[in-house]
Amino acid sequence: MTEAIPDTHAKPLLLVAACALVDADGRVLITERPPGKKLAGMWEFPGGKIEPGETPEETVVRELREELAIETKVACLAPLTFASHAYDEFNLLMPLFVCRRFWGTPVGQEGQRLKWVRPRDMRNYEMPPADAPLIPFLIDLL
Amino acid sequence: MTEAIPDTHAKPLLLVAACALVDADGRVLITERPPGKKLAGMWEFPGGKIEPGETPEETVVRELREELAIETKVACLAPLTFASHAYDEFNLLMPLFVCRRFWGTPVGQEGQRLKWVRPRDMRNYEMPPADAPLIPFLIDLL
Repeated sequence: MTEAIPDTHAKPLLLVAACALVDADGRVLITERPPGKKLAGMWEFPGGKIEPGETPEETVVRELREELAIETKVACLAPLTFASHAYDEFNLLMPLFVCRRFWGTPVGQEGQRLKWVRPRDMRNYEMPPADAPLIPFLIDLL
Repeated sequence: MTEAIPDTHAKPLLLVAACALVDADGRVLITERPPGKKLAGMWEFPGGKIEPGETPEETVVRELREELAIETKVACLAPLTFASHAYDEFNLLMPLFVCRRFWGTPVGQEGQRLKWVRPRDMRNYEMPPADAPLIPFLIDLL
């Protein structure tokens, strides 16, 4: 008898680089996923897909510029932790950087809402399943 | 006049999953890179290249079996931090898991030397440039 074995190997590995922007009061920026996107209405760390040829740091610098109209530098990004999560259609590997030094005031470039939140208050915001396990690392750090 | 601009974009992103095996005394296993390999003689965390179709956790389970003849499970691996380092020929992205639960006694399957080391003593072992920044995270954890 043959049984269906779930083939996790069919899933691609999606690489996303994310960033915890930290302000002078130790609050971290989260952004709301806009309507129409998957996981719409959930709050996440800014970032995006690592494009071919990019380092994760270059992805973060580009995404912060595109999504939030702020500037930072590769040298201003420090590795903190990462998420590894099996979504239905892909496996996500998401390194999370911390950035305390950036230029400009973040403004959602696609109309998305932004919040500066203390890590211990992040549990009050619904986050994607991959993002939630990152919170304790921010609580420890800040 | 045209000047040579270093093309960092030509470098591939190499994905390696690594693991800090922790024993009951809070010591972490490091393994010596065998002669003939790049960075020979340096000490590193066990792990290896994420093969197509693998999750990072599956890579670690496989590599621990192949390199050290021990068994663990995906559920026994917890994300800690990651390394992102620009080597000459590639950019390395290396998530580091922590594993406190495994079966068997690690024995180098390729003759490589092993050491159980307290994180605060790791500075006494020469490590690849990507691995060294991971040590403070282990000191904090253990």
